[in-house]
Amino acid sequence: MAARKLTRKDLADAAEKYKNWGRWGPSDEIGTLNHIAPDDIVAAARLVRKGKVISLALNFDQHGPQGAKSKYPSLGRVNPVHTMLRTGTDAYSGVLDHRGIRAADDMVVMPLQCGTQWDGLGHVFYENSMWNGYDCREVTSAGAQKCGIEKTKAKMVGRGVFLDVARSLGKEVLDDGYGITCADLDATARKQSVEVRRGDFVIVRTGQMEAKLKAGSWDGYPGGDAPGFAFETLEWIKRTELAALASDTWGCEVRPNETEPGINQPWHWITIPIMGMTMGEIFYLRELAEDCAADGIYEFLFVAPSLPITGAVGSPTNPLAIK
Amino acid sequence: MAARKLTRKDLADAAEKYKNWGRWGPSDEIGTLNHIAPDDIVAAARLVRKGKVISLALNFDQHGPQGAKSKYPSLGRVNPVHTMLRTGTDAYSGVLDHRGIRAADDMVVMPLQCGTQWDGLGHVFYENSMWNGYDCREVTSAGAQKCGIEKTKAKMVGRGVFLDVARSLGKEVLDDGYGITCADLDATARKQSVEVRRGDFVIVRTGQMEAKLKAGSWDGYPGGDAPGFAFETLEWIKRTELAALASDTWGCEVRPNETEPGINQPWHWITIPIMGMTMGEIFYLRELAEDCAADGIYEFLFVAPSLPITGAVGSPTNPLAIK
Amino acid sequence: MAARKLTRKDLADAAEKYKNWGRWGPSDEIGTLNHIAPDDIVAAARLVRKGKVISLALNFDQHGPQGAKSKYPSLGRVNPVHTMLRTGTDAYSGVLDHRGIRAADDMVVMPLQCGTQWDGLGHVFYENSMWNGYDCREVTSAGAQKCGIEKTKAKMVGRGVFLDVARSLGKEVLDDGYGITCADLDATARKQSVEVRRGDFVIVRTGQMEAKLKAGSWDGYPGGDAPGFAFETLEWIKRTELAALASDTWGCEVRPNETEPGINQPWHWITIPIMGMTMGEIFYLRELAEDCAADGIYEFLFVAPSLPITGAVGSPTNPLAIK
Amino acid sequence: MAARKLTRKDLADAAEKYKNWGRWGPSDEIGTLNHIAPDDIVAAARLVRKGKVISLALNFDQHGPQGAKSKYPSLGRVNPVHTMLRTGTDAYSGVLDHRGIRAADDMVVMPLQCGTQWDGLGHVFYENSMWNGYDCREVTSAGAQKCGIEKTKAKMVGRGVFLDVARSLGKEVLDDGYGITCADLDATARKQSVEVRRGDFVIVRTGQMEAKLKAGSWDGYPGGDAPGFAFETLEWIKRTELAALASDTWGCEVRPNETEPGINQPWHWITIPIMGMTMGEIFYLRELAEDCAADGIYEFLFVAPSLPITGAVGSPTNPLAIK
Repeated sequence: MAARKLTRKDLADAAEKYKNWGRWGPSDEIGTLNHIAPDDIVAAARLVRKGKVISLALNFDQHGPQGAKSKYPSLGRVNPVHTMLRTGTDAYSGVLDHRGIRAADDMVVMPLQCGTQWDGLGHVFYENSMWNGYDCREVTSAGAQKCGIEKTKAKMVGRGVFLDVARSLGKEVLDDGYGITCADLDATARKQSVEVRRGDFVIVRTGQMEAKLKAGSWDGYPGGDAPGFAFETLEWIKRTELAALASDTWGCEVRPNETEPGINQPWHWITIPIMGMTMGEIFYLRELAEDCAADGIYEFLFVAPSLPITGAVGSPTNPLAIK
Repeated sequence: MAARKLTRKDLADAAEKYKNWGRWGPSDEIGTLNHIAPDDIVAAARLVRKGKVISLALNFDQHGPQGAKSKYPSLGRVNPVHTMLRTGTDAYSGVLDHRGIRAADDMVVMPLQCGTQWDGLGHVFYENSMWNGYDCREVTSAGAQKCGIEKTKAKMVGRGVFLDVARSLGKEVLDDGYGITCADLDATARKQSVEVRRGDFVIVRTGQMEAKLKAGSWDGYPGGDAPGFAFETLEWIKRTELAALASDTWGCEVRPNETEPGINQPWHWITIPIMGMTMGEIFYLRELAEDCAADGIYEFLFVAPSLPITGAVGSPTNPLAIK
Repeated sequence: MAARKLTRKDLADAAEKYKNWGRWGPSDEIGTLNHIAPDDIVAAARLVRKGKVISLALNFDQHGPQGAKSKYPSLGRVNPVHTMLRTGTDAYSGVLDHRGIRAADDMVVMPLQCGTQWDGLGHVFYENSMWNGYDCREVTSAGAQKCGIEKTKAKMVGRGVFLDVARSLGKEVLDDGYGITCADLDATARKQSVEVRRGDFVIVRTGQMEAKLKAGSWDGYPGGDAPGFAFETLEWIKRTELAALASDTWGCEVRPNETEPGINQPWHWITIPIMGMTMGEIFYLRELAEDCAADGIYEFLFVAPSLPITGAVGSPTNPLAIK
Repeated sequence: MAARKLTRKDLADAAEKYKNWGRWGPSDEIGTLNHIAPDDIVAAARLVRKGKVISLALNFDQHGPQGAKSKYPSLGRVNPVHTMLRTGTDAYSGVLDHRGIRAADDMVVMPLQCGTQWDGLGHVFYENSMWNGYDCREVTSAGAQKCGIEKTKAKMVGRGVFLDVARSLGKEVLDDGYGITCADLDATARKQSVEVRRGDFVIVRTGQMEAKLKAGSWDGYPGGDAPGFAFETLEWIKRTELAALASDTWGCEVRPNETEPGINQPWHWITIPIMGMTMGEIFYLRELAEDCAADGIYEFLFVAPSLPITGAVGSPTNPLAIK
């Protein structure tokens, strides 16, 4: 954690320093996903060596993290509500037979950031601006007219690099309030003999989700204290030119935040609207961690398509690590 | 089309002939997805040569195919309803500032088979049975206790093969009611110099969706007449040992169906519950068709993760062809 | 209809003339519903003479008016989606028996103004103001902090007066674009031997809904051309001191509007935010019309509770005329 | 509570004894609501003496009882999710002005039995039957083809009688597990100088909801232990020929139930499908209790319209006691 609390002035300075607006032209809507070049995708595909597919998604259901106790109001995020439109019991009862086919059908009601998810570039604003300097009023009740998640529809493919920071620091789970530093990330990469490169999808494990699953309760997970990225890692993100970053916590960055009162999620203020970085949250990393520890290989083909809901500011995803 | 109308007896015979129950053990819940071996995934990854990602999804929004005119009642399938939980206009208005962060958030209400989608193995029953002989009563109002879509969470990866049947037959769009035959599929593969093999994801283009998009109206698309697989293609599915099949129509198979009155979607009766074949529908194939016609390469890495909604009988998906 | 098109200046003048802000104190949130005094309710109850209850609601289902063709974008209003959480077919199939009770349960997804409905005082703004001068920013994505429909929870009771303007003018249905005048309302009341008084709920019939029901299509109803209140009826509303007004059309006022381009629903601009008048729309009036024509009595006890959804700007209702 | 546990045989005997099937003809779908005669409505209206309207509804929002801790799985019942389709902040931001009107709009997702509600006659089955002997398979995923709540659309009007059993027994709140007896009901009516008559809506207060509200937590309320009607009150319901019964608890009847293991909510088994009695739950009774205690008058006009959602098995309601 920072020795002193970050102020609005610090955030303004960071915004100035890390601003990527205009870097990919004035009409860009996908930000750092532009770091991925076709050759990177070809190279990433070459990392598939054993034909193993690992899903990094929690299942979407009533047992998800929403609704758990939290110091932070959830603001309408609930767990998915899955309802049936027709069922096998309808079939069994014979009531579908007039249709000439026995079929079940279903529906879901879900906040787009209720489980394993991408934060799109319309999700967070810096003052009145969103990514690339677009006016925040482009995100109305009718959705995001700019930077909607559908713009990333063919973009979530590349080299995945897994950084098991918890393991690297010799912990089962990092402590709440522990801010992961640039040095932690570099040391982890070094220990794992993997290098982070331009255009990578970097996935960082704190162990927090597994601890919650083990405890059998999500209390404190959504919006609560958590280990996560320190504000200084903005520098690391800039340096590595990664495509996107994901973690196993609710909000990626360390909580309590390193800020003065009145500033919440300072790292989000910069990463999303200023740097244009799409961010993955609530990733389930246990199986990936075990596999990487077993074979010593921390890079893979990563494919995590968003659901192209027009104008959405986030999206559930089923991210796949293909090794 | 069959010279004579298919009867229930024909379906029973087909069920006997094509039944895969027990083939992957009594507790299997994913059917023909078992055809994919790890080596197939490794080989599929080698097909990535130019680093191009093509999404086969329609965007999910109010402009989707549901609600269009149809002879077939939609039974509760509506287009996605996307609503915001917080907006950029809230941010602009200053009403979010007490939270210390300006962020937007959103929600969706959507039938799981309203757009580009997978039909899961809990979707269709043969009499009182679902895939692998499970009782149809495993699919209750609480969802699918067996064969839920979440079981496929790490399975939708493999070699994709695109069969542009419309183009192969020299048509912009196949006629409604045209039943694609085994010979059509074989001829298309031959013309395209591609071979369908065990474990493939086979994607077949009729051109119908593009015709509807061009016409600016989905009328007739959901549940209406359409080109699609003839009943005889069950033989082709069996022979090729494909993993899954997808198309650009609402329901894959030819409509009007080749059946006597009272039997609807006969091919579904066999493919899903009897053969255990997951099926993709409403795939957007224009961009893929153009790319394959241009480079003459009809095979690629295919990644189309379902959203692992526990107990779901289908799932929206954003399928990616990676070339 | 006005001889010349109404301008913004006309609206500003009307706002000045009809403004009720502060009339019931600075913290009032229910506007003209304040016109109802306890004695009015006692007197209204005395109007119950034959013990007949007439519902003025359309049923809420997929056959409602949303989704019909319209020149006016619906902005997310869809018909109600009713889904089951448990069913009688589940019961029949035996899958509920472990719970010791066989019960069905259900859920609805519905815009609050998709059918027979109240427009609450948070529904329309005049420039940056809502009723009583509250800032429009009191209505955020989190709902209406002021003037939420729940404030009317015990208020929708009083004397109902039915004005069958269509019948009075000798028409089955008023023409689209016909603006009902103050004279029309007065003449109708006179013909019907009923007097409109302070605190009344006044329900006006144009016949348009019945025409749509007869035609078997809602095309043109939501947001389309319609008969309805002329702008001049603001004077009548002021004079009568009615509690609330309702009609059988989508939006009460005449369409096309009597305004210059760029001003939509001018009567709403004044009635809701300036006068504080709650408004009922999409009321089903056929049965009431027949009953009143038969017994010649056009007054009754009117009870139409809103559903007190906290922070809602509208509410579905099942309005009852009790004669 | 019964001295011995009730068995299935006891329930079968009760079903035989209390069965009203056919009483109002073979096609009846509203059961005991038939007890209300027009004259009863006229007489009930005469009870309006001071012009006071008291709402018996909890507001519908995220602070409702669903999601609280319970021994009984909620089965998909969640609190209402209210989302905005347009807002005052949109208006303030100027993004609505192209439409020529500044208006907010909203939507709700809600289980129909998540708050103050009516249990419709399609809600509970006795073996394979619903009210009046209809087959339970009339309630499919497409809703209730028989006994849908919309059939009660003009029926929820009559004389209300309030029985404050808690107060009558000298308690602030009845104990969990306390079974209200016929003698309790009679004694309360006597003390209150009110008589229950054919066609009445009887509303019974246990005080439990107020205790939960005072405690600031709904834990234990949904599906938990509660005071409520003893099984023997079926006799009282039969004798009084009431129209409907409501209470301030989650499920009206006493919990733990008076039954052997494997039988849940035995009183529901009889009241709804066998007697045809519509039932109100989660009624907010504090204000009514105070008013009745103050003026000593326990009868009033009661109007509690269901929302006529076609095929629904329950409905939220805003019940009004008009005194």
